[in-house]
Amino acid sequence: ENGELDQARRMLNRGLAPVDVAHLLESSPPKERNLLWELVDAELQGDVLQYLGEDIQTDFLRDMDAVDVLAATENLEPDDVADILQRLPNAVILEVLDSMEAQERQRVETVLSFPEDTAGGLMNTDTITIRPDITLDVVLRYIRRHERLPDSTDTLLVVSRRDEFIGTLPINRLLVSDPSVTVREVMDTDSVVIAALMPETEVASLFEKHDLISAPVVGGDGNLLGRITIDDVVDVIRGDAEHQVMSMAGMDEDEDTFSPVLRTSWRRAIWLGINLLTAFMASAVIGMFEGTIQKITALAVLMPIVASMGGIAGSQALTVLIRGIALGHVKSGNVRWLLKREIIVAVLNGMLWAVVVAGIAIAWFGDIQLGAIIGAAIMINLVIAAVTGTLLPVLLKKLSIDPALSGSVILTTVTDVIGFMAFLGLATWLYL
Amino acid sequence: ENGELDQARRMLNRGLAPVDVAHLLESSPPKERNLLWELVDAELQGDVLQYLGEDIQTDFLRDMDAVDVLAATENLEPDDVADILQRLPNAVILEVLDSMEAQERQRVETVLSFPEDTAGGLMNTDTITIRPDITLDVVLRYIRRHERLPDSTDTLLVVSRRDEFIGTLPINRLLVSDPSVTVREVMDTDSVVIAALMPETEVASLFEKHDLISAPVVGGDGNLLGRITIDDVVDVIRGDAEHQVMSMAGMDEDEDTFSPVLRTSWRRAIWLGINLLTAFMASAVIGMFEGTIQKITALAVLMPIVASMGGIAGSQALTVLIRGIALGHVKSGNVRWLLKREIIVAVLNGMLWAVVVAGIAIAWFGDIQLGAIIGAAIMINLVIAAVTGTLLPVLLKKLSIDPALSGSVILTTVTDVIGFMAFLGLATWLYL
Repeated sequence: ENGELDQARRMLNRGLAPVDVAHLLESSPPKERNLLWELVDAELQGDVLQYLGEDIQTDFLRDMDAVDVLAATENLEPDDVADILQRLPNAVILEVLDSMEAQERQRVETVLSFPEDTAGGLMNTDTITIRPDITLDVVLRYIRRHERLPDSTDTLLVVSRRDEFIGTLPINRLLVSDPSVTVREVMDTDSVVIAALMPETEVASLFEKHDLISAPVVGGDGNLLGRITIDDVVDVIRGDAEHQVMSMAGMDEDEDTFSPVLRTSWRRAIWLGINLLTAFMASAVIGMFEGTIQKITALAVLMPIVASMGGIAGSQALTVLIRGIALGHVKSGNVRWLLKREIIVAVLNGMLWAVVVAGIAIAWFGDIQLGAIIGAAIMINLVIAAVTGTLLPVLLKKLSIDPALSGSVILTTVTDVIGFMAFLGLATWLYL
Repeated sequence: ENGELDQARRMLNRGLAPVDVAHLLESSPPKERNLLWELVDAELQGDVLQYLGEDIQTDFLRDMDAVDVLAATENLEPDDVADILQRLPNAVILEVLDSMEAQERQRVETVLSFPEDTAGGLMNTDTITIRPDITLDVVLRYIRRHERLPDSTDTLLVVSRRDEFIGTLPINRLLVSDPSVTVREVMDTDSVVIAALMPETEVASLFEKHDLISAPVVGGDGNLLGRITIDDVVDVIRGDAEHQVMSMAGMDEDEDTFSPVLRTSWRRAIWLGINLLTAFMASAVIGMFEGTIQKITALAVLMPIVASMGGIAGSQALTVLIRGIALGHVKSGNVRWLLKREIIVAVLNGMLWAVVVAGIAIAWFGDIQLGAIIGAAIMINLVIAAVTGTLLPVLLKKLSIDPALSGSVILTTVTDVIGFMAFLGLATWLYL
């Protein structure tokens, strides 16, 4: 037993890289996870913590005091320390900051002073800066004085005496240029510069568009604050992608795969409750037509088809629009084209499937009028679904509401209500 | 009129970067898009093409012959040329390859010889290679002979006389090390090496895990074939993410936002047809209980609630599992824990919402038995939804079926069928 524990401890602290330990913890149910975490050496815990999801970070940090946190975060970069500190209660944050040495504290505070989801919250302060009027030869000698360069250093940042950002010198250009020229002569002054308050999603777009590896972050006064590196941007891209998938099911991208029963139940209950409200709205519509259903029970049999076809067609338009907005393809000037396209597509598919469903309904119940009614209802619902699926995300975006989270609930409400209303309404009108 | 055209032409060819032109084209409906494309100079078209989605690439390439393609792709990197060639008919591919100069042709053919979604299809052949037994001083002089280094060159690749991959020399280490030592003394021999046939999704995981900027690609014989750079990996990550979102609505991640009416209609029609099949299965279940519904029409009013709650709960479990599998968190050893968690969560939420819905049903229809029936049906459906949502993606993954594409259709079929069956079946049994 003891031998096994020793072996596990050895593996966690020496055999595996911190990122692999984090992955192992994320892949373990809570009980084993806590057991494994206990075996990780205190000075390695910070290295592991930085790779864990928010949910799990918060769980582990709850049991740590300021001294533990300080020990764990000692070797981390300021942006990772800031990320971890943000999961702690304010009192503990202050205690940890107080115990840091002055320079480190200032760096972390710089990052902490910006919202977590902006360039400032994402940046590192480990920049290598140079002056414009020195020669490349001097730069090369200056660099050689370092034991190693910060990770992902592909450019040196050129600043003035007052720390104003002036330009960048790609290291690869430094290597192929004549050593006797000055930095000013070979530096880039038109490279991408990121404002400290730029939202991280925009930062990611810039990195993708310009194939960047790192980019300088500049404050409102033009002073260099730090730099953002591609590895942190990849995390943003991954997070954005997970956000879209998870929020379509009413969940959070930081949710722990092995989140415990009670926490999971509670989070899911809220989403079920919201959807229950919309389901009752659909029921209320059906309730309006109870009399019709009693006379023609075939309506009850067929009505889910009308609602379901509308939901599927609408969610296709919705998905295309949400993606188009996220990619920056959809602008006010071309929404009209998209709306027209979606309506024509709905009419074409409406005709196709209206005929198919009508045919089946007639064959099943031997009632031509019923076939006509369901065909018309499908057509109506597909067109309404297309209009809703197209305009809803545009509208939600304008209202700064996340379309990925609320779009599908609202859409389903519309397609259910319209679907039942059209089908049962037409039937009531024609039969009674 | 002519002045406007000239202005647009100037902007497209000189004012905007190729990536911005591509974005503008992707943000335009087909008619304007084709007009703009005509204005892009032939020698710039390749630069723009490489940034376009597959759908649009294929559209533009259809109107180009081998000479056009050759002119357009002249300045591109081999992996981008290979990507573009793959959209063309075989006869044109051969014609283009035949007209290339020998070295370029060989590079493109190397990339083309690997499937598009593997490391080999993703790699570039623009490596800078060095021998292990030279000194860093010689390396620095060798580099200085280049006019510029390939983009994202953060490491030099160390190979033997027979082109076997031996190790990597980070440029930043070259800069801080003693120039008189040999490459062998400072190179890394344990850095990440990628096999040419590794799936691109695995390549992306490796880059994310190790914060890589580039990595060497090696063939089965240990020979260096090329290198993969982070910008291409970011595209893979973005593509994977879009795939998950788009395929949940039965669409493709390469789908053009402004795809024309007929193409859109046809693609969507297929998905609607598949979903119609599942909707008819649900209808068939309701049809079995027509007699019961005729006696108690309240059943028709309430039945969508049971199906809908099951669908929502199931899709939450499904989403968590699909994500967990994609992240590598879910393994055969912990599926049992997840299944147990999901069942307990379903029972807890089932109890909560069964009581709420039963209460509302009783208040609405004044029928206690009806309340009991719908409560029980919700409980049953939530548990079945939890089991299906958990085990279905694991099973689909084992069968190499994409769970993001087919998971939600199958799940909805199950929750609809079980929901209607449980609710109407219990009612038939208790009332009749």
